[in-house]
Amino acid sequence: MKKLVETVPNFSEGRDQEKIDAIVKPFKEIEDVKLLDASADKDHNRLVVTAIGTPEAVEKAIYDSTKIAIAEIDMEKHEGEHPRMGAVDVIPFTPVKNIEMEEAKELADRVAKKLSDDFNLPIFMYEESASNEKRRNLAKIRKGQYEGMKEKIKEPEWQPDYGPAEIHSSAGVTAVGARMPLVAFNINLDTNNKEIADKIARKIRHSGGGLRYCKAIGIDLKDKGIAQVSMNMTNYKGTSLYQVMEMVKFEAERFGANIIGSELIGLLPSEALFDVAEYYLKLDDFDLNQVIENRLLEDL
Amino acid sequence: MKKLVETVPNFSEGRDQEKIDAIVKPFKEIEDVKLLDASADKDHNRLVVTAIGTPEAVEKAIYDSTKIAIAEIDMEKHEGEHPRMGAVDVIPFTPVKNIEMEEAKELADRVAKKLSDDFNLPIFMYEESASNEKRRNLAKIRKGQYEGMKEKIKEPEWQPDYGPAEIHSSAGVTAVGARMPLVAFNINLDTNNKEIADKIARKIRHSGGGLRYCKAIGIDLKDKGIAQVSMNMTNYKGTSLYQVMEMVKFEAERFGANIIGSELIGLLPSEALFDVAEYYLKLDDFDLNQVIENRLLEDL
Repeated sequence: MKKLVETVPNFSEGRDQEKIDAIVKPFKEIEDVKLLDASADKDHNRLVVTAIGTPEAVEKAIYDSTKIAIAEIDMEKHEGEHPRMGAVDVIPFTPVKNIEMEEAKELADRVAKKLSDDFNLPIFMYEESASNEKRRNLAKIRKGQYEGMKEKIKEPEWQPDYGPAEIHSSAGVTAVGARMPLVAFNINLDTNNKEIADKIARKIRHSGGGLRYCKAIGIDLKDKGIAQVSMNMTNYKGTSLYQVMEMVKFEAERFGANIIGSELIGLLPSEALFDVAEYYLKLDDFDLNQVIENRLLEDL
Repeated sequence: MKKLVETVPNFSEGRDQEKIDAIVKPFKEIEDVKLLDASADKDHNRLVVTAIGTPEAVEKAIYDSTKIAIAEIDMEKHEGEHPRMGAVDVIPFTPVKNIEMEEAKELADRVAKKLSDDFNLPIFMYEESASNEKRRNLAKIRKGQYEGMKEKIKEPEWQPDYGPAEIHSSAGVTAVGARMPLVAFNINLDTNNKEIADKIARKIRHSGGGLRYCKAIGIDLKDKGIAQVSMNMTNYKGTSLYQVMEMVKFEAERFGANIIGSELIGLLPSEALFDVAEYYLKLDDFDLNQVIENRLLEDL
């Protein structure tokens, strides 16, 4: 079976359809890459591409689309609501099938080196590829945005990991990194009291002493008249969906609240759900090769 | 996405490796067919092939392997422990992806007609393809086996659905039919009292007033010192795995017994497990397209 990696590059162009099409094109045309989604947002002035493929093919598509984005996007003229620091704002690589995190990190470094060499682009490595803890979090790297980066990049602690210590005159800087797929999972409560959702969120999330790979906040779903615990699971193998389910259940109990539903947002790997079935069915020796679809994917 | 159908033909040859290889060959070589398993058993003197593919490709592989089996197997000389009535004993077709039961039934009829026309082979249609209720159950059709079939097929009520009303002189008769994939699921109890497993099995199975698509028996796992409820789920879409799980749980409770584990035997479709996760996570609007692997399979 082929190795499969996912990438979700973000480009700072969400308005000019011609430019958007040109940037997306490599993900449509290169063999062994499958474009799963391309969403351009006019307010954010941002294009988010989701694609999957072999590491080599994904590398090529990223290279080609970056080349086009750098030629077409001028950050000096860019405005939009979403924080951004470069024409190719961020390039994450996520191991999907038959590939370990270590190899996704090597891919990220290879891509970062090549992009910085060929396009004179300063690059920060983030998440699993971060050279230090401060750079793990994209929001911290991006703080000050494109405009602030002109000075920030000259500070000793914000030297880029690859490329020159000054921003690209039109493309700014780019963040590249390997990370686990994010699973966005929201649990709805039978209360309209957002404080209860907040309290539960604080208990279950890593920063509050809860589950290691869980980020959580309380949300007020006004139109539905209910409160929600909204979660980002940053490593579905390390922290399972059933664990947050059971934890939200017993934390909600003290407030007399109950779970009335949940939702998964966007894409997720099948294993994140098999794992839930395995737990609740108390399966002893479940093997992923027992799943017909996994056998079919062997040939991809 | 391509239509995918599974077939698990059983051939009455489990000893002669050369013949076995020849029968299996079409499933290895025909494009758009994937051989998942080929198990030959010497005691049963039987070969069970598991393959998946597009309806057209599977039809071709079945035709080619049947032609070889009829040429190579002489039922007059066949002996083995497993009940059998023909060189190609049974050919089931199971809808897997992007195909409804109705189309699998059409495929079964098309194959049956062609095999009977070209090889003068009498064919009984079984399971979903059965022409009457008595023929739904393969064991009832096969009763009397190859030897008894010589007379049985002449009885008015056992006229074959396709082909002549006399057995093929060396290949006997064949059963062909469409059916849902079987999911074999066993639940272990913390008791060595088989009677408890029996009682639970009787309550949850269809014949005992339980779940429509559940067959169940109690089993004594002597080496483990525990009793087991052993189930065949005959339609995982109609009756879910979580339903038997919860039913076994509440039936066991009255005997003070608990579930300590479970096992899935053989292959199953991913949806049978997604369904379990959906229930226990209380997911509101889960879409199979959210699963990355399903998106990858679109191109198959």
